[in-house]
Amino acid sequence: MEIIEGGVTSPQGFKAAGVHSGVKYRTLDLGMLYSEVPARAFVGYTSNKVKSAPVQVMMSENSEFLSAFVINSGNANALTGRRGIEDAITMKNAAASELNIDAKEVGVMSTGLIGRFMDMHKVKYGISRAAKELEAGREADASIAEAIMTTDTIKKESAVRLRLADGTLVTIAALSKGSGMIAPHMKVLHGTTLCLVTTDATLSNGFRKTWGEILDDSMNMVTVDGDQSTNDTCALLANGKAGGKCADEDPNFINGLRKVMTDIARMLALDGEGATKLIEVQVIGAETKQDARSAVMTILNSPLVKSAIFGSDPNYGRIMMALGNSDCKFKIEDVRLTIKGGDMEVPILDSGAPVFQEERSVEVVRMAMDNKEVTILVDLSAGNESAVGWGCDLTYDYVRINAEYAT
Amino acid sequence: MEIIEGGVTSPQGFKAAGVHSGVKYRTLDLGMLYSEVPARAFVGYTSNKVKSAPVQVMMSENSEFLSAFVINSGNANALTGRRGIEDAITMKNAAASELNIDAKEVGVMSTGLIGRFMDMHKVKYGISRAAKELEAGREADASIAEAIMTTDTIKKESAVRLRLADGTLVTIAALSKGSGMIAPHMKVLHGTTLCLVTTDATLSNGFRKTWGEILDDSMNMVTVDGDQSTNDTCALLANGKAGGKCADEDPNFINGLRKVMTDIARMLALDGEGATKLIEVQVIGAETKQDARSAVMTILNSPLVKSAIFGSDPNYGRIMMALGNSDCKFKIEDVRLTIKGGDMEVPILDSGAPVFQEERSVEVVRMAMDNKEVTILVDLSAGNESAVGWGCDLTYDYVRINAEYAT
Repeated sequence: MEIIEGGVTSPQGFKAAGVHSGVKYRTLDLGMLYSEVPARAFVGYTSNKVKSAPVQVMMSENSEFLSAFVINSGNANALTGRRGIEDAITMKNAAASELNIDAKEVGVMSTGLIGRFMDMHKVKYGISRAAKELEAGREADASIAEAIMTTDTIKKESAVRLRLADGTLVTIAALSKGSGMIAPHMKVLHGTTLCLVTTDATLSNGFRKTWGEILDDSMNMVTVDGDQSTNDTCALLANGKAGGKCADEDPNFINGLRKVMTDIARMLALDGEGATKLIEVQVIGAETKQDARSAVMTILNSPLVKSAIFGSDPNYGRIMMALGNSDCKFKIEDVRLTIKGGDMEVPILDSGAPVFQEERSVEVVRMAMDNKEVTILVDLSAGNESAVGWGCDLTYDYVRINAEYAT
Repeated sequence: MEIIEGGVTSPQGFKAAGVHSGVKYRTLDLGMLYSEVPARAFVGYTSNKVKSAPVQVMMSENSEFLSAFVINSGNANALTGRRGIEDAITMKNAAASELNIDAKEVGVMSTGLIGRFMDMHKVKYGISRAAKELEAGREADASIAEAIMTTDTIKKESAVRLRLADGTLVTIAALSKGSGMIAPHMKVLHGTTLCLVTTDATLSNGFRKTWGEILDDSMNMVTVDGDQSTNDTCALLANGKAGGKCADEDPNFINGLRKVMTDIARMLALDGEGATKLIEVQVIGAETKQDARSAVMTILNSPLVKSAIFGSDPNYGRIMMALGNSDCKFKIEDVRLTIKGGDMEVPILDSGAPVFQEERSVEVVRMAMDNKEVTILVDLSAGNESAVGWGCDLTYDYVRINAEYAT
């Protein structure tokens, strides 16, 4: 597998564009993705009971093949009632008409402020312009990436090129946006944030289960604030332009897809609103997979753990407090806790009791925590299941960003 | 019912003291409560699976009657293994010996940093001193209140005097501490934070169920950060010194107890770490009580909702996002959302769609949110059940306090 400098138009047959429609004041705010041939689509949606209009429309159509996606930022088109539904359908129809394809083949996503009606005059203008500007290449990758951002501060792209068992060279690329309101519910085929994954490999409908598992281990293990969005949509489009056999069970393909999805998951966590640190939590030795996931997510979502890591404050008792609030089964006297940061690996608890007490040793924990990436390793010694997840610290900037978002 | 300026020693037969033992650098750090006669005890504990040593010791003894409580702040005596258990037992024994009572009649609570061993030399000195300083009166109330505080900024006391149906005059008083790591699990008889409730009324063992219900509607509906502590303990002591009949089913008594517990719940929320505002969430028209509680707590725990209220940012879509993530059943097209603050009451959503769109109207929402107390009212129109809960905003100070706690 080769990691390449690429984006959603790197796989054969994909084009993209990002334009300024005027929904946002200055920046690009409308993106379009296009596949020259209909691509088999695997789409996961938020499991929030309050779903945005585009999610409702997409879920009701449930198209097996998609040729394009139109995505706007600046307005989530959520809590917009019947008018919002009509606007989402209008977006699909407008794109279909510009691209000369069936409206059923157009996917739609929105992200931004909740509870405001779309300015469809601007959106329709943007769609028309984007359709004319579709291109392949790194410039097109960059423009669609920018167009779908909200509070994001970095572009979230990952791409790999690999050979299938039959020798076919295929490319997989992923693009995502998301910075706040990130906490997917752990349910198969429910992704988080907006994510587009393109590949020129051939996939059959049977790949759905594997895709769900990969989502569960990647996007569904990311949390920034424990708040799952109304708009989360994650779409994998496979257009088969590389030729070759169906890659459903090709181990190289599955590994490649896991790689780009894990990359994206880590980027989402690192670019969490206001984040200064990536927190990885690894739980091993759990009785069940569900136990391990619950422990990981409860630790990652604890504001006390997140604030402590922001301040490199060696208050590791909070990690155990969070573990104790999860649904995970364990015996405290069997638990081992280790904190890793940089090249340091500091054992904290063994058999449920602190390894050390002296102030000097506490200082070592602080040094490990004082890194851009902090790993919390919990060994429950209760079984053989494990899980890994990603989150970020809770900072002054998180509060600032979210106290001033609508205004 | 008369609201009185009182504390835990206001009911007849109770004394208290707060002293400086040296566990904390300067402030009072060890409190003692004493009842002249053994009091029937109703004690609720954290449902966190990681329980502090004092909680483990108290739960295993499960004494029906208690004559005293010894409480230290500065060290939680949690994650301290076998040595912690021994220290908690030593605290009970030391107090029993000073007070010349059976160790089984002594309750113990700890609060403070997790994962450090107690300095028992200091604690034993404090117990000896506190036992000698036991007094009734407002000064004693104040000293025990101060001794059990951690990051608290206000004393949390409430007291009422009322007549039972048989004419007996009884007093109920409550004292609580708690500012962070506050989010009780909704389980009957599991309280949150440290809370002492004293009364000179007579109660039988049969009152346990009613006490559980009152806890569920008060302490168990408070959340500051969604993080349930390892040490939460809430004890009601009824020593019967006022005489009169058993008050188990006396409506005046039950109302009085509800009143002081609701007062304490609101104080805990308002004094949440870094809080500038009290948030009350009322959910009405739910299908089940559990639905209503889940909706209330999910909204109160959302960092996005909490930050928006801090900034008086009229981003009410986040309230609906949080509602959608709760376990509560509803139809979005039936939901009505209202925000109240000061003397303003602003309808936001009706039939699941925004009531207004204009910038000027959004400004009205901001004005309602710009109050010390903000109420979010959600009418689900799905049934007849309701719930009320209390939380606080997420502020820069919350982050500051918790990034620097251990140091």
